[in-house]
Amino acid sequence: MGDCRSYSDEQSLPEVLVLHRPAIFSFHEKKFEKKFNLLKAWESPLPMEEFLRNHARSVKAVLCSFRTRINSDVLNLLPSVELIACESTGVENIDLVECRKRGITVTNAASAFVEDVADMAIGLLLAVLMKIPAADRDVRFKLWPKDMTFPLGHFKLREKQVGIVGLGNIGLQVAKRLEAFGCSISYTSRKQKLSSYKYYHNTQELALDCKILIVCCALTDQTRHIINRSVLEELGRDGIIINIGRGPLIDEKELVKCLVEGKIGGAGLDVFEEEPYVPKELFEFDNVVLTPHRAGFTEQAFFHDFQLLVGNIESVFSNTTKPFMEYLD
Amino acid sequence: MGDCRSYSDEQSLPEVLVLHRPAIFSFHEKKFEKKFNLLKAWESPLPMEEFLRNHARSVKAVLCSFRTRINSDVLNLLPSVELIACESTGVENIDLVECRKRGITVTNAASAFVEDVADMAIGLLLAVLMKIPAADRDVRFKLWPKDMTFPLGHFKLREKQVGIVGLGNIGLQVAKRLEAFGCSISYTSRKQKLSSYKYYHNTQELALDCKILIVCCALTDQTRHIINRSVLEELGRDGIIINIGRGPLIDEKELVKCLVEGKIGGAGLDVFEEEPYVPKELFEFDNVVLTPHRAGFTEQAFFHDFQLLVGNIESVFSNTTKPFMEYLD
Repeated sequence: MGDCRSYSDEQSLPEVLVLHRPAIFSFHEKKFEKKFNLLKAWESPLPMEEFLRNHARSVKAVLCSFRTRINSDVLNLLPSVELIACESTGVENIDLVECRKRGITVTNAASAFVEDVADMAIGLLLAVLMKIPAADRDVRFKLWPKDMTFPLGHFKLREKQVGIVGLGNIGLQVAKRLEAFGCSISYTSRKQKLSSYKYYHNTQELALDCKILIVCCALTDQTRHIINRSVLEELGRDGIIINIGRGPLIDEKELVKCLVEGKIGGAGLDVFEEEPYVPKELFEFDNVVLTPHRAGFTEQAFFHDFQLLVGNIESVFSNTTKPFMEYLD
Repeated sequence: MGDCRSYSDEQSLPEVLVLHRPAIFSFHEKKFEKKFNLLKAWESPLPMEEFLRNHARSVKAVLCSFRTRINSDVLNLLPSVELIACESTGVENIDLVECRKRGITVTNAASAFVEDVADMAIGLLLAVLMKIPAADRDVRFKLWPKDMTFPLGHFKLREKQVGIVGLGNIGLQVAKRLEAFGCSISYTSRKQKLSSYKYYHNTQELALDCKILIVCCALTDQTRHIINRSVLEELGRDGIIINIGRGPLIDEKELVKCLVEGKIGGAGLDVFEEEPYVPKELFEFDNVVLTPHRAGFTEQAFFHDFQLLVGNIESVFSNTTKPFMEYLD
């Protein structure tokens, strides 16, 4: 059994560098330890740079949390690295240009989380539309409305035009679900896709025609603050925005102002610009639903993520399989 | 303009009896008043029986809130009544057998609310699965989980078998939405339907094969407590129950016990046995989502409801159109 492994066995396992504790270690750390000799930088008393200089010169594979920034300074300390394996969907923490230049493969785990993240997008949208968390608070605080003076749901979802910002794997799954609710789907994306959904060249024009925007794209220099004040104003007083991508896709200060000023109708946010900081103005609103960056976090998704990561990392040592990379767009 | 109407105009409008203030009056009372001379029993100082005896002998149409019980005692006081027009989907407050015997038409408003109620069923399910209200409370109370020690979502929705209890209009809309999430659908109903979904003769067998039950049927003598302790135990420790039908469809005391004992995995409840009373044990749970009987309450649904009610009531006075009745099953 794995637990009977001796120290020398551990030494013979392939070395994998881990700079910050990844989310997946909450569930599968022991299983990783049976397969790899994990160099856990955060457990060392040494400063990160010194740790890498002393221990990581021969490391071929790095397992990355979304909090680990990999840039040329870090890569200079990892002369043997062949693979950066990211546990998450987004890889905005990795300097992809630099990795490509050095012939380093970067893999993500989009396919592990795609369906559960899409489910969360719809969950947040329905929670905002029907003010479910606010209604749940009311019941728990014994504020069941008397004399039928209840607030109404935001609006009927059916026949609403919904704009998907980034029609990648997640965006497509979100769109498929919304079709069943009777919504009509349009989108903007880096480029037009083979799809029957209506394509818009930019987010502002998309927002003008939609009552709901769902932000699903990857965070890049081009998409940072893709949802700015003008987009929010085009979305309008009834409009609802959902973000299950990354916090900096939305100009958060402007979003807060638009909500305070009643310029938009509601927001469902799983991600924020400076996590775990959440602007406290948002706590005042019943038309805002806030979750702590947990879209897609199911047992099954993390198990799939574990399998993907192990497969990708083993490919470096076996040379028999090709690692897998996928961008969201 | 309607507001310039004189008292004599009002007298010439068709009389409609209203026993309790209906929900729809929060939105469309004035518009009803322009079309009908409303006899509002709850505004009279007289006891209900005396009010009916004195004022309602010639009344042909009654507009009913779901709180208004119509039984043979009430009908005996309404010798001219031809139509009971209910503002809601459920008509369990009406003695349908007695009405049929007396040739009185009963109409409901199922088609006004069907899609929004189905949306709420999915909203409650996703809210329970991903603990959205609990996550939202955590963020608002600044309890963003540190070090990734977050709770996981309940389970992946995709590929789960979902049981619909009552495959009527609402049940069908719920099923259609769940198919887009990759669920497989089965159901029980008064009788088997022309449908590709798998039919079960009873709720207990359905529960045994399902991870999720969504209760969508009408409340009748046959369906009261259709969800009892054995059904809940078959659903099991992971199982989730959603109720957007009527409170008494579930044996609420047993549901509370099953949740306290961890015999089932979660519940999303829009309706309760003794509204507005909600058992306070339920307030303790993060895997329970509670809303105050508001499924389907959107502006558009109430406007549609208004149009249906006016159409049905006018049919009594014009004899040109047939009133409309629909049961959920």
